[in-house]
Amino acid sequence: MSRRVPAVTVIGGGVIGLAIAWRLARRDVRVTLLERHTPGAGASGAAAGMLSPLKEAGEPGPFLDLGLRSLARYPEFVREIEACAEMEVGYRRDGRLDVAFGADAADGLRRQKELQETVGYTGRLLVPAELRRLEPGLAEDARLGLATEHDHQIDNERLVRALWLAAEREGVDIRSGAGAAGVETDGPGGPVTGVRLDSGEAAATETVVVAAGAWAGALDLPRPLPVRPVRGQIVVLRLVPPALQRVTWGPGCYLVPRADGRLLVGATVEEAGFVVATTAEATRRLLECAIRVVPALAGAEIQGFQVGLRPATPDGLPVIGADPATPGLHFATGHFRNGVLLAPETAELVAAEILDGQAPDPAFTPARFG
Amino acid sequence: MSRRVPAVTVIGGGVIGLAIAWRLARRDVRVTLLERHTPGAGASGAAAGMLSPLKEAGEPGPFLDLGLRSLARYPEFVREIEACAEMEVGYRRDGRLDVAFGADAADGLRRQKELQETVGYTGRLLVPAELRRLEPGLAEDARLGLATEHDHQIDNERLVRALWLAAEREGVDIRSGAGAAGVETDGPGGPVTGVRLDSGEAAATETVVVAAGAWAGALDLPRPLPVRPVRGQIVVLRLVPPALQRVTWGPGCYLVPRADGRLLVGATVEEAGFVVATTAEATRRLLECAIRVVPALAGAEIQGFQVGLRPATPDGLPVIGADPATPGLHFATGHFRNGVLLAPETAELVAAEILDGQAPDPAFTPARFG
Repeated sequence: MSRRVPAVTVIGGGVIGLAIAWRLARRDVRVTLLERHTPGAGASGAAAGMLSPLKEAGEPGPFLDLGLRSLARYPEFVREIEACAEMEVGYRRDGRLDVAFGADAADGLRRQKELQETVGYTGRLLVPAELRRLEPGLAEDARLGLATEHDHQIDNERLVRALWLAAEREGVDIRSGAGAAGVETDGPGGPVTGVRLDSGEAAATETVVVAAGAWAGALDLPRPLPVRPVRGQIVVLRLVPPALQRVTWGPGCYLVPRADGRLLVGATVEEAGFVVATTAEATRRLLECAIRVVPALAGAEIQGFQVGLRPATPDGLPVIGADPATPGLHFATGHFRNGVLLAPETAELVAAEILDGQAPDPAFTPARFG
Repeated sequence: MSRRVPAVTVIGGGVIGLAIAWRLARRDVRVTLLERHTPGAGASGAAAGMLSPLKEAGEPGPFLDLGLRSLARYPEFVREIEACAEMEVGYRRDGRLDVAFGADAADGLRRQKELQETVGYTGRLLVPAELRRLEPGLAEDARLGLATEHDHQIDNERLVRALWLAAEREGVDIRSGAGAAGVETDGPGGPVTGVRLDSGEAAATETVVVAAGAWAGALDLPRPLPVRPVRGQIVVLRLVPPALQRVTWGPGCYLVPRADGRLLVGATVEEAGFVVATTAEATRRLLECAIRVVPALAGAEIQGFQVGLRPATPDGLPVIGADPATPGLHFATGHFRNGVLLAPETAELVAAEILDGQAPDPAFTPARFG
């Protein structure tokens, strides 16, 4: 490894770390990105790519604002990435469908429509006949639907590859296989001096962005972060006719059809530490839900599985911003199920803080954790 | 391919074809075995290896007799195969456990015990406390158990490898990748003259044994056989403590622990033509049953899947014996879920008919199909 001092070192090659590295490099910063495995090996590679801020944030507040701002950035973000990487990332704006089977779930959809309207989203409630005209494969006993045109989706695997390519083309030095063990400072309270690698080697740097996802809490940092892994499992089916056309949320799962003929069924939310495994009950439950929503999926072939560890925080909010106690230490983690959605805005916020001195919303500051 | 005339050509490299080829070769017959893929690629490779004649034959009769005779041959069969192949095949004689949850199922176990006793099997009914002493991982609401010491099991994958090795050591010419398309005769009603391969090539032979499993019905034969494929799916889990010790049958599935730490959960019975696929509903149902029987399996890792096409006949009996209308044409197929159990006895019967002129039980004759 060279002894040069890069301007910024990013720890973590998920969508967050890649987007930050790419954004900084486009603003002429020399960036090194350290990734323990290969880019996208963590939660970014096990995701359905839904861009649905309202499904994740149940109420108005800084988290919903963050999601809406990031969603608004997506068209331009995709345009730039696709141009730079010279590949498509499967960006689609064909909305989302929620399906309710029971009376309580139907009431939930009506409330969801009202919440959506408070932020300017329109949604259309669909009676069973309308539902099945829209998606003929849906179960006949579906009671109510809510069609929302505002949500988008992206192929997260293609997005990772495109960001990786784009970052390298902008000059980011991506070091696959270089896991970071911790951040070193010039004594307690002193500024960042480098990153210690798993190998024991130290890489000198004055500015670090911790974008290590679920592993952020396991790094040796001047400010330990209470970030923990929350496992998510996805089952990948092969679509069978009558194929589902759009992203559909059912009772306990979502179904995401991809242009390549796959149907992603996700996702579990499990406290399982760092154990990455496809398990019996999670698979059973996802399959049950998928067949509940689209009965013809009973005969669909299982193509594979995805498992990821999402970075969760005690208050459910991401950690974005500089650590006031350690000059040069920045965070961009804790995005939980929202890393893909929040990547564009997070990259902008981190770049603006490092280069322009503009602090992000204090709701996301690392200083909120003792 | 050489122009020599082998004494016997066996079509199919599953456990049935391999056992026949090996048995004939041990009696100094020159044998050629044609296998479209590789030995064990069909139903023999997707099986749990349970040797349980009474689970399959619900009543006394020639089928149960066949199973019991074959089970009785197993100890010597395994001894010979293991000696010849110089490898173990995972033969275990630790019996079987049936578990009932509902009152009807418990009555069924009591009737099963009575049936078993008519053929000299003893079984022990177990109340819940006894059940959980035997298998601490069983669900607490299991109502009744039936422990039967007579059944055996074998690792079918190891058995295929051992038979393959043993057959080659006895001089059998195993031709992987040589699929048979049909059997040729010297005019209608005339004797067998050869086997036509998928490639169009003909291999001369005067004696053919059709052991092609589910594909026997798709061969071009002087006597078309009404053998059809019935799909079976198995889910392979990694055993977690408290591990299951013995083969256990629950409501809708069986669980077979293997010495290598795998737990096989099987099996579906599906009319799906020749479509070999792991499907959503089958997987869901097997997982549901496994977790019902051993709740700790909820967290077990899914290691993989097996899918096989079993050869089924209209009357549920195998087809074993010479075709009286075509000299030189012999059958050994239609074993449905019982190929592994019935391999030793089937091999003896076919060898005795070809070499000693002793016909098998007429219940199994191919002549019963118009």
